[in-house]
Amino acid sequence: MKTEWNEECAVVGVYNAQNAASIAYYSLFAMQHRGQEASGIATSNGEKIITIKKNGLVTEVFCDETLNKLKGFSAVGHNRYSTAGNDSIADAQPLFARYDLGEIAIVHNGNLTNARQIRDELIKEGAIFQSYMDTENLIHLIARAKQENLIDRIKEAVLRLKGAFCFVILSRKKMFVIRDRYGFRPLSLGEIVNSDGSKGYVVASETCAFDLVGAKYLRDVEPGEMLIFSKNGMESQSIMLPNPHPCVFEYIYFARPDSRVFGRLVYDIRKNMGEELARENPVEADLVIPVPDSGVAAALGYSRQSGIPFELGIIRNHYVGRTFIEPTQQIRELKVKLKLNPIRELIENKRVVVIDDSVVRGTTSRQIVKILRDCGAKEIHMKISSPPTISPCYYGVDTPSREDLISAKMSHQEVCQFIGADSLSFLSVEGLKRSIGVENYQYCQACFDGKYIV
Amino acid sequence: MKTEWNEECAVVGVYNAQNAASIAYYSLFAMQHRGQEASGIATSNGEKIITIKKNGLVTEVFCDETLNKLKGFSAVGHNRYSTAGNDSIADAQPLFARYDLGEIAIVHNGNLTNARQIRDELIKEGAIFQSYMDTENLIHLIARAKQENLIDRIKEAVLRLKGAFCFVILSRKKMFVIRDRYGFRPLSLGEIVNSDGSKGYVVASETCAFDLVGAKYLRDVEPGEMLIFSKNGMESQSIMLPNPHPCVFEYIYFARPDSRVFGRLVYDIRKNMGEELARENPVEADLVIPVPDSGVAAALGYSRQSGIPFELGIIRNHYVGRTFIEPTQQIRELKVKLKLNPIRELIENKRVVVIDDSVVRGTTSRQIVKILRDCGAKEIHMKISSPPTISPCYYGVDTPSREDLISAKMSHQEVCQFIGADSLSFLSVEGLKRSIGVENYQYCQACFDGKYIV
Amino acid sequence: MKTEWNEECAVVGVYNAQNAASIAYYSLFAMQHRGQEASGIATSNGEKIITIKKNGLVTEVFCDETLNKLKGFSAVGHNRYSTAGNDSIADAQPLFARYDLGEIAIVHNGNLTNARQIRDELIKEGAIFQSYMDTENLIHLIARAKQENLIDRIKEAVLRLKGAFCFVILSRKKMFVIRDRYGFRPLSLGEIVNSDGSKGYVVASETCAFDLVGAKYLRDVEPGEMLIFSKNGMESQSIMLPNPHPCVFEYIYFARPDSRVFGRLVYDIRKNMGEELARENPVEADLVIPVPDSGVAAALGYSRQSGIPFELGIIRNHYVGRTFIEPTQQIRELKVKLKLNPIRELIENKRVVVIDDSVVRGTTSRQIVKILRDCGAKEIHMKISSPPTISPCYYGVDTPSREDLISAKMSHQEVCQFIGADSLSFLSVEGLKRSIGVENYQYCQACFDGKYIV
Amino acid sequence: MKTEWNEECAVVGVYNAQNAASIAYYSLFAMQHRGQEASGIATSNGEKIITIKKNGLVTEVFCDETLNKLKGFSAVGHNRYSTAGNDSIADAQPLFARYDLGEIAIVHNGNLTNARQIRDELIKEGAIFQSYMDTENLIHLIARAKQENLIDRIKEAVLRLKGAFCFVILSRKKMFVIRDRYGFRPLSLGEIVNSDGSKGYVVASETCAFDLVGAKYLRDVEPGEMLIFSKNGMESQSIMLPNPHPCVFEYIYFARPDSRVFGRLVYDIRKNMGEELARENPVEADLVIPVPDSGVAAALGYSRQSGIPFELGIIRNHYVGRTFIEPTQQIRELKVKLKLNPIRELIENKRVVVIDDSVVRGTTSRQIVKILRDCGAKEIHMKISSPPTISPCYYGVDTPSREDLISAKMSHQEVCQFIGADSLSFLSVEGLKRSIGVENYQYCQACFDGKYIV
Repeated sequence: MKTEWNEECAVVGVYNAQNAASIAYYSLFAMQHRGQEASGIATSNGEKIITIKKNGLVTEVFCDETLNKLKGFSAVGHNRYSTAGNDSIADAQPLFARYDLGEIAIVHNGNLTNARQIRDELIKEGAIFQSYMDTENLIHLIARAKQENLIDRIKEAVLRLKGAFCFVILSRKKMFVIRDRYGFRPLSLGEIVNSDGSKGYVVASETCAFDLVGAKYLRDVEPGEMLIFSKNGMESQSIMLPNPHPCVFEYIYFARPDSRVFGRLVYDIRKNMGEELARENPVEADLVIPVPDSGVAAALGYSRQSGIPFELGIIRNHYVGRTFIEPTQQIRELKVKLKLNPIRELIENKRVVVIDDSVVRGTTSRQIVKILRDCGAKEIHMKISSPPTISPCYYGVDTPSREDLISAKMSHQEVCQFIGADSLSFLSVEGLKRSIGVENYQYCQACFDGKYIV
Repeated sequence: MKTEWNEECAVVGVYNAQNAASIAYYSLFAMQHRGQEASGIATSNGEKIITIKKNGLVTEVFCDETLNKLKGFSAVGHNRYSTAGNDSIADAQPLFARYDLGEIAIVHNGNLTNARQIRDELIKEGAIFQSYMDTENLIHLIARAKQENLIDRIKEAVLRLKGAFCFVILSRKKMFVIRDRYGFRPLSLGEIVNSDGSKGYVVASETCAFDLVGAKYLRDVEPGEMLIFSKNGMESQSIMLPNPHPCVFEYIYFARPDSRVFGRLVYDIRKNMGEELARENPVEADLVIPVPDSGVAAALGYSRQSGIPFELGIIRNHYVGRTFIEPTQQIRELKVKLKLNPIRELIENKRVVVIDDSVVRGTTSRQIVKILRDCGAKEIHMKISSPPTISPCYYGVDTPSREDLISAKMSHQEVCQFIGADSLSFLSVEGLKRSIGVENYQYCQACFDGKYIV
Repeated sequence: MKTEWNEECAVVGVYNAQNAASIAYYSLFAMQHRGQEASGIATSNGEKIITIKKNGLVTEVFCDETLNKLKGFSAVGHNRYSTAGNDSIADAQPLFARYDLGEIAIVHNGNLTNARQIRDELIKEGAIFQSYMDTENLIHLIARAKQENLIDRIKEAVLRLKGAFCFVILSRKKMFVIRDRYGFRPLSLGEIVNSDGSKGYVVASETCAFDLVGAKYLRDVEPGEMLIFSKNGMESQSIMLPNPHPCVFEYIYFARPDSRVFGRLVYDIRKNMGEELARENPVEADLVIPVPDSGVAAALGYSRQSGIPFELGIIRNHYVGRTFIEPTQQIRELKVKLKLNPIRELIENKRVVVIDDSVVRGTTSRQIVKILRDCGAKEIHMKISSPPTISPCYYGVDTPSREDLISAKMSHQEVCQFIGADSLSFLSVEGLKRSIGVENYQYCQACFDGKYIV
Repeated sequence: MKTEWNEECAVVGVYNAQNAASIAYYSLFAMQHRGQEASGIATSNGEKIITIKKNGLVTEVFCDETLNKLKGFSAVGHNRYSTAGNDSIADAQPLFARYDLGEIAIVHNGNLTNARQIRDELIKEGAIFQSYMDTENLIHLIARAKQENLIDRIKEAVLRLKGAFCFVILSRKKMFVIRDRYGFRPLSLGEIVNSDGSKGYVVASETCAFDLVGAKYLRDVEPGEMLIFSKNGMESQSIMLPNPHPCVFEYIYFARPDSRVFGRLVYDIRKNMGEELARENPVEADLVIPVPDSGVAAALGYSRQSGIPFELGIIRNHYVGRTFIEPTQQIRELKVKLKLNPIRELIENKRVVVIDDSVVRGTTSRQIVKILRDCGAKEIHMKISSPPTISPCYYGVDTPSREDLISAKMSHQEVCQFIGADSLSFLSVEGLKRSIGVENYQYCQACFDGKYIV
C-alpha cells in the first residue's frame, strides 16, 4: 500500500552564497525533470525566513521581482513531482513554520514508510496537520523533541523516521542536511566560490545542478550523515548507522544522463545496460532505435555491442505542454503521437529493435509498437534496459500499485502479446548489476525483486 | 501595540443547503466591502472537506469550474481585508487542518488580544505555526483540548481566548458558530429554504448577504453564544457570560448601509448621526456635500436637520482598481483625485459643509479640502459624523497606532489648521449615543474614549 | 436599421505634452464609464507612431511598462463600449495605418449613417477592410483623397461622411480634431501647462477628464469645426456648415454628472429633470428613492420640488465584475439583485416614488419593481426622468431596435402593467426642454420623437 | 538588404474536414519548431470566416473554448517565427479582410523581395497598410485586380510578386494554395479521410503535420502551381513557369528530421552530410558528439563513416522557456549553459569532434568550445555540416546581415581562432550536393555562394 505523497522530487540547499536565491533558482531549473508540478524557494538573511512557492515550472513561478524578494545568504528549494487530488498549493514546498526555537523551512525528497504512523501518533498528541506532506511530520517532531538545541532536536526527530529521505532544513542562521541511512535517493555536495573569494556550499539531488551554477562537486552526502552549515563552516556527523541501498531506478530512468549519481555517471551506466541487453538478448535486426529521450544511451550501447546500426527512428516533439485540446476521432492514438513521431522511411520493411527504459502498465509500450507497426516495420523487438517491474516502490518513486504493474500479473509471453511486439526482452537482474559494475553491489532493487530493506 | 493581523473581514457559514458553496460565494460577494485581499471557501460533503482560497476578489478567486469542485451541503467562507507583509497566501482563510478528531476548517473575523501569549504557550508545548493568523491558535487549542467530543473541545478552547472573535467552524458532519462574550463584531443568523422544502441556515457578518441569497433574517448570534448545526437541526448554548459591547464603528464606517447590524439598520443610524451633527454644530452654509460613499447618509441627515440643501458635490470614480501607473508631476493630488472629483459649478463661491465619517491620519481630509478649495469654495466646514479617533482598536479594526492618529497628538484647532478647513466639527460621544438611540448603551467606543473592555 | 458598431465610446487627444501617453491614460480612466470593453493609446514622437490596445479596462490594458513604450509629445486614446460578435481585438481603437503621406492613427466616437454605403463604394474601388469599424472608412477616404496635403485630404474625406462623428487624428507631426456639423456627440477642448511653462492641449469627450489631468476647460469643439494642432499651435477651421443638434441622452444617462456637456453641467440638468418630473407628475408618497447611480440627481430634484423625503433606498454593489457564476434556482432575480439591494426597513409599508433615467426594454424596471414589492412597499410609483424611448438611435448610441423598445410597442398603460408598478410617469418632451433650459432648443431627441436630422 | 518581416514560419490549410480547426491546430502543433512567437487559425463555415490569433505557442493560444468557436469545414493556420519591434499583435496571421468579393483570410510563409516596391505602388494608389506583413500586399493586389472571379484575381496578383512565397488563401467557399515558381519554401499536400468516408485535404509546410493528424502524403505542391479546393474537389493549375530552387537550408537546419521535404527525408540527408563531412575532413579523435538537437543526425553519419564512436556528450535542457532571470556574475556563460550541459566524464582528456549544423555569428560556437574546454577536452575539432554562411537570405530565412556573418568577414583561420577550436571544418558545397544526391541539382544555396536566383 502506498502511504503518502512524496514522490520523486528535487531538493537544493545553498549556504553562504552572495545570491543564494539565484543559485537555488538555477539549480532547480537544471533539475526540472524531477518535478514540474510546483516549485518553491525559502531564503534566510539571518533574521527572517521568506518563502515563495507556487504551482508551475521554475521559470513560471519566479521572475526577477519575486526572486529579488528572496534576500539572504542561505536558501532551500524544491521541485514537486505531482500533487494528488487537491487544488490548493498547500502541498508545495518548502514548508515553513514558526516553533519554539524560531523559524524553520524544510524541503524533502523521499517517502517515509512510517509517515502515517507518526502522524497518527502526533495527532493523538494534539498536533494539527495542514498539508498532506511527510515533511510536516519532521517539523512537528523537531518542535516536540526534548533536546535543547536544534542539532540535537533534528537528530532525535530523524531517528524516528523510516523510509527514504533527503532533508534540507533552513533555520535563520544555519542549514542542516540529512540523508537516510540507506541512501535511497541521491544527494550531492558541491562548493561555490563567491566573487569576494569566500566559499559557499550547495547540496542538490543531482550534480547537473552544480554544472549550471558553476559549483565544484565535492562528494555525495553519505547515507546516515548529517551536515551542519554555520558561520563556522561545514561540519559532518554520522547520525545513523549507514546501510547503503541506493535506488537503482535513478540510473534507469530518473536522473539526467549528465548527472553523477551515487558516484557514477548515469550516461555510462545506461550505455552499459544497452550493451548487457545486447549480450543477453541478441537478435537479428536492421536497426536499433531508442524511445526518446530516456532510451537513447541504452540504445547506443545496444548498437555498439550488437553491431546493428543506431538510428533516431522516433522523433520527439518538445513543445508538449500541459493543456491540450481533446483529440477528435480523426486523430487516433494521439496521446503518444503528440510526443513521438516515428520516421516511416527508416522503419518500413525493417526489422527494428526498440529500446525503452522500463515497462510499467504496458499501455505506452503497446502504443509505441502500434505506431511502428503502422509505419510498416517488418519485425519489432522491444528490448527493455531494466528487469520487469513487479513491485511498487515505497521509497519515493511514484509507481502504480502492484495490480497495475503488467509484469506482476501477466507472464512474459502475455506481456509480449499485450504490447503486440514480435519479441520482448528485459535486462536480467544480473545484467543490471554488471551494468553498474560495482563490487559489493547493494542497490535497492525492490521494484524488480520485491525485497524491501525497510 | 497592535498584536497580529486579523482586521476587519467577512465570514459566512452555510448548513444544510443544496448548493452550500454557491450560497457562500454570493454571501461573500455581498460582503466584498469588508475585505478585498483574498477570498476562500471550504465545503464538506459529510466525508471530506475541500478548501479553495486565493488572493483576489470573490469573483476573481472563483469560477464555475472551481465552485463545482466545492461539493457539499455545508460551507464556510471568508473575505480577507489585507495581508501584512508576506507574499504567500498562507494567511488566506479558511484554515484547514487534520487533527485527532478528523478534519476541520475555520474562518474568523476579529482579533485576539492574547493571541501572542497563547501562541507562545502553544509553541512552548511543541506546536508549530505555519501562518500569521489568530485562527491557527484556535485549531491548536481544539486539537490539544482534553475533552472527548468536539463540542466540548471547542468550548474549552474558546474559553482561553480574549478579544474579539466570530468563528465559524466546519467539521465533516457539523458546523459550529461562536461569538465572543462582548459581541464586538456583528454576526447574524438567517434561514434558507431549499427547493425540496427543507430548511437550511446561513450565518454571516452582515445581513446584506441574506438579502442576496434570499435568506430570512432570524436574529443575531448572541454575545457568548455557540450555535451547533447538525443533522438534528440547530442547537444554541450560552458558553460565555455575555457582556455586550458591540463595535460602534460598524455603524460609522464598516457595514453596508443596507445591513442590519446589532439589530439596527446602519443607514438609519448614519442619518441620525448627521442630524445630531447638525444639532450640535450648526453653521450657516449654502450646501451640504458628502464624501462619497461613506458620508452620504450622514449628509442627508445633516441636510434634513439643518435645512441646508444636500448636493452630490463630489463624484466618485468606481473603476479605481489595484494597479495604477505612478502619477506624473503634471497630475497633482492624484491619489484622492483618482477617486473623487468635485463639481466646480456647484462649489464655486459657496459656503460648503462637507460630511465625512471619520478622521484618522488627517491626510485624506486635507486633500479633500484642497480640491474643494481649488474649485473656489468660499468656506469649507468639515463635519465628521463621529468623535475624534484617539485610540487604536485591538478588537479587529485596522487602525494605525496612536502616534499616527492626528486627533491623539494635535489639538482640535491644530487638526483644523492641518486639514486646511475653515471650521472642523466632530460628533460628540453623547451625540453618537443619541444617534444609536438605545437605552442602556454599552457600545465599545474605545477608539473615541480609550476605555478598553478587555 | 442599425448600421455598424461604433456606439457610445470615449476619445481623447493630447498635443504638445511632456508625457502625452500618461495624460491620455488618466483621461481615459476618468471616462471609463463610456466604454469598458477595450482601451488603446497611440503616441507620436514626431518620427514614428506606436499603438498599444487590448481588451479590458484602462487600468488592465496599461501598466508602467507598456505606458513607457508610448513615448512622444502627442497621443490619441479610446475606450470602447462593446464589440459585437468577434473575439479578435481587431475592432479596438486607435486604428493605425501607413499610407502615402506616412503614418496615421485615428480614434472615433459616433456612428456613420452612410458607413455601409461608403464602404461598399470603397470596396468596389478595391479597398480592403480588416475590421468592422467606421473608422476604417475615414482612413481609406483620406488615403484616396485627391488633395495633396493632409489637411485638405481630411476635409475632402470628412465631407463624404454622414451621421455622428468625433474624430481625433494623429499624424507623426500634427493632430486633427473634427466634430460633425450636428455636434451629436460631445467634445471639449482644454489646455494644459507643462512643467517648463509651455502650453499643450487636450480634447476629450467629457470634461471630467480635464479635472483629473489638471487641464483647464477652454470651450467645446464646435459642430462642423476642424482643429489643427501643429508646432505653430492650434488653428481652427469651420469645414462644415454647423447645424447643432446635440444628443439629449448625454444629459439623461451617458455623461458623468460632474462633466460639463454641450456647455452645461450634467448634474444640474438631471436635477432640473427631477424637478420638472415632480411638477408634471405629482403623487402623494412617503419617500423618493433613486435607482443608483444614474437616477440620483433627478431624485434629488424630485424630492426638492415635491417635498417628499429623499432616501438612498436601494444600495448598489460596486464590485460587480464581468465574470459571474451562473445563479442557482435558490437565488432568484439575481441579475438585478447582484447590483441593487433595496433596504426593506425604509420601504416596508411605504408609498415609494422610484426615479430612473429611462425605460428601454422594460425588463430591468420590472425587476426593480419586483424587489421593492418583495420588501413590502405599499405603493410603487415609477417616475422616469425622460420621455418614452420609441425610436432607435443611429448617431452613436447603442439602443435596441424598435421592436425591442417597450414604449414603441405597448401603450403607456400596458407598460405600467408589464413592469408591475402602481403608476408610471415619464417626463414630457416639453419638460425635458425646460430642464435643459436653453433658448432656441435644437437638441436631437430622435429617440423620443422619431425625427432624425440626417 | 533585408526588406520586411516574413521569416521562417509554418502554414497549414485544411479543406473539407469535419473538424477543420482541430486538424489545423494539431498540424500547427507538429510544426511548432518553425515559429513560437504567435499562432492563429481562421475557419469558414461557408457563410462567414472567423479568425483567432494571439502571441504565444499553439497550445497557449488555443483552448477548447476558443477552438470551438472556429466552426467550419475549411481552415488556414499559421505559426509566426518572430515579430520585429512591435508590441501589437497586428503582425500575427492569418490576415483577414473584407473586400469586393466578400471575405478572405490568408497565411504566408516566405519573403517577397519586391514587397516594399509593391507596397509603395499600392500606397501611391491610395491603399492603406495596417500591418508590416507581406501578406497584406497580396490582399490588396487581389482586391484591386481587374479580373472578375477570385481565381483569376489571385493569378493576376501573384504574378506581380517576386521572391519566396507559399500562400494558403481561404474564401468562404473555397481554398487556394500557391507556391512560388522557385519553390523556395516547402509545401506538401496530404489527404484525410473523414469518419463518413468522405475525403478532405491538408496542405502543410512539413509532412510531420500529416503524421500527427493521420493524413496521407500525396505529393509536394509544385513550384509555380496553384491548387484550387472547392466542393468539386481539387483542381491544379500551373500559373507560373516553374524554375525549382528549393532552399537547401531546410535540410541543414529548419525542418524536423522526420519530415519529408522537397521529396526527401531530412534525417537521411543530415546523416549523409555527416558522412560527407567525415570523408572530406577526416581527423583522429576519440569521440564524435553533436550539438543537440540539430547536429545529431549529422554526427551519427560522421561517426558511421569515420568509425569514431558517437556519444551524446552534450545534454540539452528542454525546459528552457522565454522568461529568464538575468544571470548573476557567479553564473558565467549562462546563456549556452542554460540549454547545453557537456558531460565532463566523457570529454575530459579526449580528442572531441563536435558536429554543429552551421556557424552564423560565431558566438554560440565559441561558447560551446569554451564549455567543452572547461571540461578538459584535449582537442576540439569543430565540424560544420554545411558550407560557410557568407550571404544573407532574402527568401524567408531570418539571417543577420552580411556584416554579422562571421565567415563573410573573417578568413577560415580567423574564424577557427575566434571560436577557439583546435580545428574547424565546413562541408564543401560539392559535399552538400552529394549529400542531397539528386541529379540536376538546382537548390538555392545563395547563403553559401551568394548567387541569388531572383
